Amino acid sequence: MMEETGSSLSTNHPYWPRNLSLPTYVPNDRSMTEILVFLFSVSGVLLLSIWALTGKQVAGQRLSAGRRLALCWFTVCGFIHGVIEGWFAFFYPVIISDQSFLSQLWKEYAKGDSRYIIADNFTVCMETVTACLWGPFSLWVVLAFLYNRPYRYVLQLIISLGQLYGDILYFYTEHRDGYMHSEHGHPIYFWFYFVFMNGLWIVIPFALIVDAWRQLSAVQAISDKTTSQSRKHKAN
Amino acid sequence: MMEETGSSLSTNHPYWPRNLSLPTYVPNDRSMTEILVFLFSVSGVLLLSIWALTGKQVAGQRLSAGRRLALCWFTVCGFIHGVIEGWFAFFYPVIISDQSFLSQLWKEYAKGDSRYIIADNFTVCMETVTACLWGPFSLWVVLAFLYNRPYRYVLQLIISLGQLYGDILYFYTEHRDGYMHSEHGHPIYFWFYFVFMNGLWIVIPFALIVDAWRQLSAVQAISDKTTSQSRKHKAN
Repeated sequence: MMEETGSSLSTNHPYWPRNLSLPTYVPNDRSMTEILVFLFSVSGVLLLSIWALTGKQVAGQRLSAGRRLALCWFTVCGFIHGVIEGWFAFFYPVIISDQSFLSQLWKEYAKGDSRYIIADNFTVCMETVTACLWGPFSLWVVLAFLYNRPYRYVLQLIISLGQLYGDILYFYTEHRDGYMHSEHGHPIYFWFYFVFMNGLWIVIPFALIVDAWRQLSAVQAISDKTTSQSRKHKAN
Repeated sequence: MMEETGSSLSTNHPYWPRNLSLPTYVPNDRSMTEILVFLFSVSGVLLLSIWALTGKQVAGQRLSAGRRLALCWFTVCGFIHGVIEGWFAFFYPVIISDQSFLSQLWKEYAKGDSRYIIADNFTVCMETVTACLWGPFSLWVVLAFLYNRPYRYVLQLIISLGQLYGDILYFYTEHRDGYMHSEHGHPIYFWFYFVFMNGLWIVIPFALIVDAWRQLSAVQAISDKTTSQSRKHKAN
């Protein structure tokens, strides 16, 4: 819709492809540092709080260090999916010209992927599902582990697969577009924002899928053994 | 790429939007009936074979009717994802002008969604993941249930969530595009091909996710109870 090619030589925005026409673009008045400090300090505070909170015995059990790290991860996911990506899902049509803090965050991030300021159809759909489902589910799974709910690993599997599949499609669609939506090889915008930040949502969900697979299969194996033994007892 | 608007008044193809320019289009020489008979008879034969096969006692157990139906479903999924969608994933660039049987099947289906003959980026990516992962996994899960493997419900959950999320994005992206890729309200192309056929992959995977959730949580609940009891024994 907004992805029209302009013929003017002077481009008034920092986005790629350089010939994108973005007449309503308003440059940020917040610096990159302010935005990154906000993102990482909120994430850091959440991470440390959950680490401290889960150190105590909860619901008659003590969580392992790995499990506590997983809960820290899901809490940060709850914040990023629910608040940051939630903002995008609701306000993507106006972000380009808006100066709210979170709109400025997205205008900064879009230097690594301009699909976020041209309302790319797949991006909007995937982000909306992420914000509305994986966001709340991420907080739900933290409670599920704290209260030792029997569906805790099922929920971990659902969120992690949702994140992984969404992210695979995110990278794959951009790969087929020839990485045209950022300056190819730029150390910050391409490698840090686009590749590294999103790469986290490939590596960590994959590890948590493997973890859930192992846990759920182990418990099923014990149950199957019991069933098989009781069947043999009946047969004898 | 091919989605350019032509100004010629005579459109030589049956796809929507009507102003799509598809100069390499070759009309099918197979009828809609032939194509649908092929699709439903292969699916029907697979369904009946698996129903018959799973009626016997396998690996010392007898499967319930619901479980047998689920295995029939996954076998049909293996065929549709692996063969039909696999064909699309490999040959999408040439389907528009190709007369192989499966290319004709896609040219027929595309009357309900022209994204399949214009190499829409999201569609190609989602279909490639579906063909390469959910296809083989669908056959794997059938074997997993026949041989009573402990990861069988985990695999059912993974495939079903993958199918559901892919299909939600498939409908959602087209909804945001204003259903421009088919004749809105057409009883066969819009309602049967696009809505009904894809609707199956919303309803059935959702039911199978609920089924896996219940099964896995029930087994986990028993395991948690045992752990909690042995912890109390130790404490006493």
